[in-house]
Amino acid sequence: MENFKKIDGGVCAAQGFKAACCEAGIKYKNRTDMAMVYSEVPCVCAGTFTSNVVKAACVQWDREIVSSGKPVRAVIVNSGIANACTGKEGFDACEATAKAAEKAIGVSYDGVLVASTGVIGMQLPVEKLVNGVTEMSGKLDRSQEAGTAASKAIMTTDTVNKEIAVTFEISGKTVTLGGMSKGSGMIHPNMCTMLGFLTTDLSIEKSILQEALSDVVKDTFNMITVDGDTSTNDTLVIMSNGLAGNIAITEKNDDYLIFREALLYVCTYLAREMAADGEGATKLFEAKVVNAKSKDDARTLAKAIVGSNLSKAAIFGCDANFGRFLCAMGYSGAEFKQEDVELFFESKAGRLQVFDRGTPLAFDEEKAVEIMKCDEVTVFVDMHEGSGEAAAWGCDLTYDYVKINADYRS
Amino acid sequence: MENFKKIDGGVCAAQGFKAACCEAGIKYKNRTDMAMVYSEVPCVCAGTFTSNVVKAACVQWDREIVSSGKPVRAVIVNSGIANACTGKEGFDACEATAKAAEKAIGVSYDGVLVASTGVIGMQLPVEKLVNGVTEMSGKLDRSQEAGTAASKAIMTTDTVNKEIAVTFEISGKTVTLGGMSKGSGMIHPNMCTMLGFLTTDLSIEKSILQEALSDVVKDTFNMITVDGDTSTNDTLVIMSNGLAGNIAITEKNDDYLIFREALLYVCTYLAREMAADGEGATKLFEAKVVNAKSKDDARTLAKAIVGSNLSKAAIFGCDANFGRFLCAMGYSGAEFKQEDVELFFESKAGRLQVFDRGTPLAFDEEKAVEIMKCDEVTVFVDMHEGSGEAAAWGCDLTYDYVKINADYRS
Repeated sequence: MENFKKIDGGVCAAQGFKAACCEAGIKYKNRTDMAMVYSEVPCVCAGTFTSNVVKAACVQWDREIVSSGKPVRAVIVNSGIANACTGKEGFDACEATAKAAEKAIGVSYDGVLVASTGVIGMQLPVEKLVNGVTEMSGKLDRSQEAGTAASKAIMTTDTVNKEIAVTFEISGKTVTLGGMSKGSGMIHPNMCTMLGFLTTDLSIEKSILQEALSDVVKDTFNMITVDGDTSTNDTLVIMSNGLAGNIAITEKNDDYLIFREALLYVCTYLAREMAADGEGATKLFEAKVVNAKSKDDARTLAKAIVGSNLSKAAIFGCDANFGRFLCAMGYSGAEFKQEDVELFFESKAGRLQVFDRGTPLAFDEEKAVEIMKCDEVTVFVDMHEGSGEAAAWGCDLTYDYVKINADYRS
Repeated sequence: MENFKKIDGGVCAAQGFKAACCEAGIKYKNRTDMAMVYSEVPCVCAGTFTSNVVKAACVQWDREIVSSGKPVRAVIVNSGIANACTGKEGFDACEATAKAAEKAIGVSYDGVLVASTGVIGMQLPVEKLVNGVTEMSGKLDRSQEAGTAASKAIMTTDTVNKEIAVTFEISGKTVTLGGMSKGSGMIHPNMCTMLGFLTTDLSIEKSILQEALSDVVKDTFNMITVDGDTSTNDTLVIMSNGLAGNIAITEKNDDYLIFREALLYVCTYLAREMAADGEGATKLFEAKVVNAKSKDDARTLAKAIVGSNLSKAAIFGCDANFGRFLCAMGYSGAEFKQEDVELFFESKAGRLQVFDRGTPLAFDEEKAVEIMKCDEVTVFVDMHEGSGEAAAWGCDLTYDYVKINADYRS
């Protein structure tokens, strides 16, 4: 029985949060391309960021703020230009954005996070950014529609917006946690061009919040891949403003576990949505590995399966070419014996075993195609070596992925 | 000035080597799908094999023979079924193949290498294999045409056959080195579904031969990638039969260096050909990294660039979206500062710098397209951090890659 309840909404669901968006004309025309999320009161904030050595200017900006422990009031996002590989000029653009918010809404600029996604190696048009901040500051709104509009403004090649919200009880108080995220290429978060923003009215200590986020990321956003490319801009932040009025969480007690469960659910939902909406994808491709030597091995194996171009093309073609999945497991880095492995295809159309402890099975090809035609396909692997378990999520490799990326800038 | 000379031919160029092929009907119809290379006298043999944990039965068979140091007389290849993930039955098929050669040509079966490429997880039709060996044994031929025919019989999704031969002088004797290889998907050799077979009449001690091969592989076959998938079947073997009559190479003297230079040339040629003929490829995509902290860093960076799906799609689209290349370098695992990096696009149409020590340059987009339209495109990166240097080779990511792999088995 779950300790949380899914509700409608996104970043504006929790108390005290407002959002806005605008058409700043950074790159796109005739669509919103900037969003702002604002808390009426100061928030503790935790974040996880890209592991790419080449970090976008905004990632450097946010890391400094998050690690400083300063209270955070707002996050400002643009979806036109990544602000990566932009030198000092790029860093200046972050500062100008934050200072525009300070001027417009009276919050301290060093409590304003900025995030960017889009083309790497281009400079941001600072005037347009600043104008966008000013415009959004004047129309911050706590309605569900405002949150949804923000989740649409941060999309790049995404085809659907991603948002979710849940509620749960902590010390007699109803706490709300909401979030939004975007993909959908250059997705191989280790902490990636994924952006995710979570808001909650929970009262929690910063160090515990960071621990919960870092922990949950490992099994959610870090377990998805669209193309194996870890972005320069990956950013996931959670802002907690305490307005729920619960007894503050300061240790890993039962309250913490309730919160962690809700956080895991929210992050899993957003991560799966991002994988399913990977560039050009026609379906969600899930790998579940059970009974591996360790949790780490299970993660490594699951991620290798959904990360393989050949596996992904087979999923697109509904081709139960299971050798490709075993091949990917074999080069993943995890040690195992193929003589221990069982492999199944699963979807809502059924379950089919194709490999049994070292030996290929004669299987019903028609059934396999039927299973693989569904919009969510799982490769289920039993390693028979231990108790490690993990899931990873990706998507199929399609003509449209190539089309989208052969011609991104034009 | 080079110490070797390129000549026409392939695996039959060196003295004492013969080849044959046949239509065994393993998977394909109306094309040759088996090849055999035979030496009239015993060979010392060195090999490098896939690092994939899931090793094909034939890889296991060959590794045993090569490590035993037993003299090798022949190698038999089929291009229909990979004989990977096939359990004991797969291993029995290797033995049956080698024993068929023993019966037909009187060589000891434990000196017969076997290699397979094709679908993983299917059993080989042993009777067809054995018939193929018998047929080929009766028509072994030392002509250049026989070598070329063998190089065609081992192709799978390759569009051109790959063979080369060179001669060089060792202690007053002319030595010949020839080879053939095939790609063209599941290519990310560490040691991969690449197969390569080199033949030479050089006289050399086995341990020195192995050292030369292992050394040269690092900068050649291990520096190519088509799709990041390290095959279960990668095999590269060199057979040296000593018929050139040179003073045997038993240490790393000047003779060794002459041989190594020729071997490097031959392996580089075959590796580049495999990359250029990657599944669906329209062009060769090369990354050259200079002045990296170390040789290993240079290799890591170069391979990350040519391995990135996003970089490969940009190369296909002639889109000088250089941020993708920097992004790939950033997640490669090598440490560096983007403030040190210079990045250029190069081809026979010219050279264009796009990134200068942390700062994107305004560049001529038309010139960039002109450069990238060529059939060989190089991303040249100067790290300004040390003296490490490496090149890696891949290909563009195209609609045809998806097409080929969405529907491989049918």
